[in-house]
Amino acid sequence: MQNIRRMVEKAKRNRVRLRPHFKTHQSAQVGEWFRAHGVEAITVSSVRMARYFANHGWDDIMIAFPANILELESINELAARIKLHLVAVNQETVAALAKHLQHPVQLSLKIDTGYRRTGIMATNYAEVDALVQQIREQDKLQFAGFVVHDGHTYKQTDTDAIQTIFNTSVYQLRLLRERYKSKFPDLQLSIGDTPSCSIIKTIHGVDEIRPGNFVFYDLTQQRIGSCSFDDIAVCMACPVVAKHPDRGELILYGGSVHFSKDVILQEDASSVYGRVVELTENGWSGPLEGIEVVSLSQEHGVVKASPELFDKYKIGDLMGVLPVHSCLTANLMQGYLTTAGEQLEHLTGLPQRELVS
Amino acid sequence: MQNIRRMVEKAKRNRVRLRPHFKTHQSAQVGEWFRAHGVEAITVSSVRMARYFANHGWDDIMIAFPANILELESINELAARIKLHLVAVNQETVAALAKHLQHPVQLSLKIDTGYRRTGIMATNYAEVDALVQQIREQDKLQFAGFVVHDGHTYKQTDTDAIQTIFNTSVYQLRLLRERYKSKFPDLQLSIGDTPSCSIIKTIHGVDEIRPGNFVFYDLTQQRIGSCSFDDIAVCMACPVVAKHPDRGELILYGGSVHFSKDVILQEDASSVYGRVVELTENGWSGPLEGIEVVSLSQEHGVVKASPELFDKYKIGDLMGVLPVHSCLTANLMQGYLTTAGEQLEHLTGLPQRELVS
Repeated sequence: MQNIRRMVEKAKRNRVRLRPHFKTHQSAQVGEWFRAHGVEAITVSSVRMARYFANHGWDDIMIAFPANILELESINELAARIKLHLVAVNQETVAALAKHLQHPVQLSLKIDTGYRRTGIMATNYAEVDALVQQIREQDKLQFAGFVVHDGHTYKQTDTDAIQTIFNTSVYQLRLLRERYKSKFPDLQLSIGDTPSCSIIKTIHGVDEIRPGNFVFYDLTQQRIGSCSFDDIAVCMACPVVAKHPDRGELILYGGSVHFSKDVILQEDASSVYGRVVELTENGWSGPLEGIEVVSLSQEHGVVKASPELFDKYKIGDLMGVLPVHSCLTANLMQGYLTTAGEQLEHLTGLPQRELVS
Repeated sequence: MQNIRRMVEKAKRNRVRLRPHFKTHQSAQVGEWFRAHGVEAITVSSVRMARYFANHGWDDIMIAFPANILELESINELAARIKLHLVAVNQETVAALAKHLQHPVQLSLKIDTGYRRTGIMATNYAEVDALVQQIREQDKLQFAGFVVHDGHTYKQTDTDAIQTIFNTSVYQLRLLRERYKSKFPDLQLSIGDTPSCSIIKTIHGVDEIRPGNFVFYDLTQQRIGSCSFDDIAVCMACPVVAKHPDRGELILYGGSVHFSKDVILQEDASSVYGRVVELTENGWSGPLEGIEVVSLSQEHGVVKASPELFDKYKIGDLMGVLPVHSCLTANLMQGYLTTAGEQLEHLTGLPQRELVS
């Protein structure tokens, strides 16, 4: 909860709204920790997640993913009862929303300031003009502003590089604000990645931040420099199921179905799929040296250990493992246990359909 | 279902027992398709999955994963009502089972014939002798034989290489049988990977095969040579949510939380995360040329398309995607829809605990 408190205070200090992304934890109870810190507006990445949190009392929710017009029925149902924010990239999407929405929604345009995944290029004024005009003409659509997700900060390990990415985005966003502020004096600039929000001290020039991962952090964020090992607030407890003394390897019941296949490439070109910690009565230690998760298959985790640590672990012991990517790990787990022993739920299931012949 | 029929017939022709691995589908209804083909014994990878299928009428189940002695209570509950097979690698595990089991279980030793993930080295006769002797002394443990999983066939794309792996395993397993057959005339040799079971025509020298992936197959198996594109029996239907004409890319609602991050490296060093097919009324076409899933983030799939195919897809269309790894994709989806429109369930949730501070 210290991670939450710290981000809440940082947002207050910088006078920006914290609209935390709840996809990392997907837990009503973890949501309550945010509410206790005064957070009122949240971000999610699907209609289904929005419904889950709306059912748990959240009434100001942004779905920060290009609106899926195949879910208009659920969108209408949600827009009837909460302040719903959607995001669009294309005119086709805006047209479909305009045609089928039954209740007003906030609509932001997703802008690409350098990540190159999705979003309108920040310099494509012709397209932004056309979209803003299209939104203006629709009474159910309330133009809210511009949202950015700088996912390319995840590839950096240098504070200056992250600062540059942030500055570049803010610069481009402010040009957009200048362009439209006479017609939309309240338009909001929203930015979202955990590395920027964690590392950059002075968050000026935007109205809102939407980090998510910081609630737990993970080895990836530690590597980037967003957090210390001590800040990582999620740990998997995996049973030791086999030992191989000939090669100093232990087998954990914990594989890619639990951790996902995210990996950290080390400077010596070796791969790490998780760092081992000692589980204690009230939590866990810092990462141990001389022991690491070196490979994962579907249910097996392979841990390479120094002779001393190899001998320390017995079959049936629980080994603590810090994950490489907490969002995916949490998504795969569907439930948490706090170090105080409380059970927390996690939204289960996914909306897409898999076809079987 | 054609994949099931073909494997059932192959097992019959070779006079080996087919004990299919159900972790690929984890669906009671898909299990019924096997039962309709006369299958009576199954494989799973966790106690939880065993309980799920026991509750759906399966009474001969092998948990093909080193027994997790932290789950002895559930193991006892299962062993009271079904013929339960466990697998062990270490003496510590056998000792814990011997001490706490309340009902007889079948116990096989997991042998490593070359994969080097887990298992007793096939040539480590001293260790196998000790383990067999240890099992013999316990009345609740019934020594069943030796199991192998040749996961290294997944790295091959050459039929001869797979045949060599299979022959090497069978050779080593038969030496083990020779060694113990006077005391255990009924001991069983069991082998399990989908590539071997699909590619090798004459499966001689073992008593049992445990393939799982073949029920759906996937792009990885097609690449290995285990199946043709036409045999792939699972397909994700993903909504198109954004279009980027400037770079010929479409954005799908379908990312690593749905597909996992498995990837196929192509000969030109490019990566493929899924092949696109045309969805038809009764199923789907073969993979289209000039369009591929080229990257995945958490919820986004990025599809690169030729100009013609780019123009063909509109926002809100469903795009069919063949997955790289059907086991992980199925695990992430928790539900299927058959091409005949039937809803199929998938076991949800996972047993490990994630700790939160």
